[in-house]
Amino acid sequence: MASPDRQYTVAILGATGLVGSHLISILEERNFPVKTLVPLASGKSAGQSVRFKNENVTVVEATPDAFDGVDIVLASAGASVSKLLIPEAVKRGAVVVDNTSFFRMHPDVPLVVAGVNNDDLKKHRGIVANPNCSTMQLMPVLKTLNQLSPMKRVIVSTYQSVSGAGKKGIDELLESTAEFLRRTEDPQAPMSDPKVFQRPIAFNLIPHIDVFMDGDEEGYTKEETKIIHETRKILHRPDLLISATAVRVPVMVGHSEAVTIDFEIPVSPKQATEALAKNPDIIVRSENTDYPTPVEATGKDPVYVGRIRRDLSNPKTGLCLWVVADNLRIGAALNTVRLAEELAKMDLVRVPEGKTVAAV
Amino acid sequence: MASPDRQYTVAILGATGLVGSHLISILEERNFPVKTLVPLASGKSAGQSVRFKNENVTVVEATPDAFDGVDIVLASAGASVSKLLIPEAVKRGAVVVDNTSFFRMHPDVPLVVAGVNNDDLKKHRGIVANPNCSTMQLMPVLKTLNQLSPMKRVIVSTYQSVSGAGKKGIDELLESTAEFLRRTEDPQAPMSDPKVFQRPIAFNLIPHIDVFMDGDEEGYTKEETKIIHETRKILHRPDLLISATAVRVPVMVGHSEAVTIDFEIPVSPKQATEALAKNPDIIVRSENTDYPTPVEATGKDPVYVGRIRRDLSNPKTGLCLWVVADNLRIGAALNTVRLAEELAKMDLVRVPEGKTVAAV
Repeated sequence: MASPDRQYTVAILGATGLVGSHLISILEERNFPVKTLVPLASGKSAGQSVRFKNENVTVVEATPDAFDGVDIVLASAGASVSKLLIPEAVKRGAVVVDNTSFFRMHPDVPLVVAGVNNDDLKKHRGIVANPNCSTMQLMPVLKTLNQLSPMKRVIVSTYQSVSGAGKKGIDELLESTAEFLRRTEDPQAPMSDPKVFQRPIAFNLIPHIDVFMDGDEEGYTKEETKIIHETRKILHRPDLLISATAVRVPVMVGHSEAVTIDFEIPVSPKQATEALAKNPDIIVRSENTDYPTPVEATGKDPVYVGRIRRDLSNPKTGLCLWVVADNLRIGAALNTVRLAEELAKMDLVRVPEGKTVAAV
Repeated sequence: MASPDRQYTVAILGATGLVGSHLISILEERNFPVKTLVPLASGKSAGQSVRFKNENVTVVEATPDAFDGVDIVLASAGASVSKLLIPEAVKRGAVVVDNTSFFRMHPDVPLVVAGVNNDDLKKHRGIVANPNCSTMQLMPVLKTLNQLSPMKRVIVSTYQSVSGAGKKGIDELLESTAEFLRRTEDPQAPMSDPKVFQRPIAFNLIPHIDVFMDGDEEGYTKEETKIIHETRKILHRPDLLISATAVRVPVMVGHSEAVTIDFEIPVSPKQATEALAKNPDIIVRSENTDYPTPVEATGKDPVYVGRIRRDLSNPKTGLCLWVVADNLRIGAALNTVRLAEELAKMDLVRVPEGKTVAAV
């Protein structure tokens, strides 16, 4: 099935963004068979250049016709851009791995984490979706544990870095922190109002990521419901009881999650540790004091798991753990590239005839 | 019973520390009937002065004899100091409100949160303990909800500020953050090794507060087991299923907690909101986007509760909420002073004859 010699024309939609720049460097690092790189961005950024394999490649405006001749699109330019341009890319024969939320819950679009549910790629109709970063890093962990004993209930508290909001999130944390520090010396020093985040983020916490929902999900943020719905879809566990609290923390890169799991059958910390350690995408820190932190995980590919222990509120069938990963790599760009690799390996880089994603 | 005109000689053990300085300012703010203030500290700090009611009061070395003539001791100088000096204070007739962990779980020592279990003060034998800050702010909230419907299970993830580690915690966050920012301009700029925290705290998270436990509590930190044991003792719920993950975050002041509660009988977010709003020690932020943050809670006395919603992993009998408070005030100094006020009001500022706290 595989086409080992095929080279691909790869478009990056959102090439000048934070995830876009990671996509390009990961394509290069992993030596993806790129024939031509087509960096696409808004008209504003067109004409800039990006660096790929020691060459400058000019950024082109993302219009429908920019997808002519493209085999694979790696999209990370926001949900509204995906809505508008991805159907145009597919119409022109490109297969799209979309990193935005727009198509994730669409029944015709597989939502895939490499190494977790690769077989779902076979069902694609031109579009494959990448989950949200806070879901992504949980998936190898929950998949592995769910195989040991079916999970009944999962409770997640997140500690999410500002890079989840892109370059502008990092800039706002850097600038507001510098202002805060100046104020400790001069109480009259100016403090800017937050623009990216809903509250000042310097030395603060904001339990509010994305918009608030209503109806059955009243009181939850969309970020929290993404964790719930995407986990159920990826693990093929539509019945899974799961809840989340998503909190923005003043960390640059790296999302962390405190996770409590109720199982059907008892799983000991030792069993969980051994099973997780066998997953090549996970590094287990089994010593108490060897827990991972987001600063250490930055720039690394694995998902780190530590603090694996019995849940004292459910000592017979519960576990607690601490999961940390680089949200820009594993959480976004790395999975996108790995899905492109899997599509190539499985000879799935073509839009199946007669099957389309129903309009959304 | 009350002695409205009695004035007290009040010793502050640990007067030059972060909580000590809050104790002194809260005594003044709340106009506690202080006849004489006796600020005590280590020999190193003796001779310094603290400001009380527009006067400088000289700090005296904390020796056993320093408690002669003292009516009330407010202690916040660390567990080892409490172990050594509190029995000496009680021997000299003083009643001690201890803010350290040393006596908290002692069966002869009431562990009290003002407004939650004041009646337990009646059982004191010279020593009353203040819970740990991360437990404290939960207590008015859990007590109120437990009265609506008995709680079956509580899961807490904390987001704890560096001020929980005292002045030196704040200094380490300030200094390491300044170093981090200098490095963004000069990659060769020096970075100091952490001294107070186990890992660099600037723009990082550390899921490790206090030491790691073993035995039945293997894998938990002492901070986490404090939340478990102290909650059970204060709420008189020795059977309560409760678990915690305690994480240090790069926030100066204010602890935050994501809390999931399973109840015996369904409690709606509206019922919980109404009940919590009636508690004078709590401010409920019932609008989704009006959630509290630690920066806003700093310097304030109430416990703030927001994000009250159904637990989607237990929609019939579960709730999730977000609890924020100033850990230096409500979490430590304010409760200590309020307990002294209650002891005075209940005429309990005397060591009961023939009853002592068994040696520990």
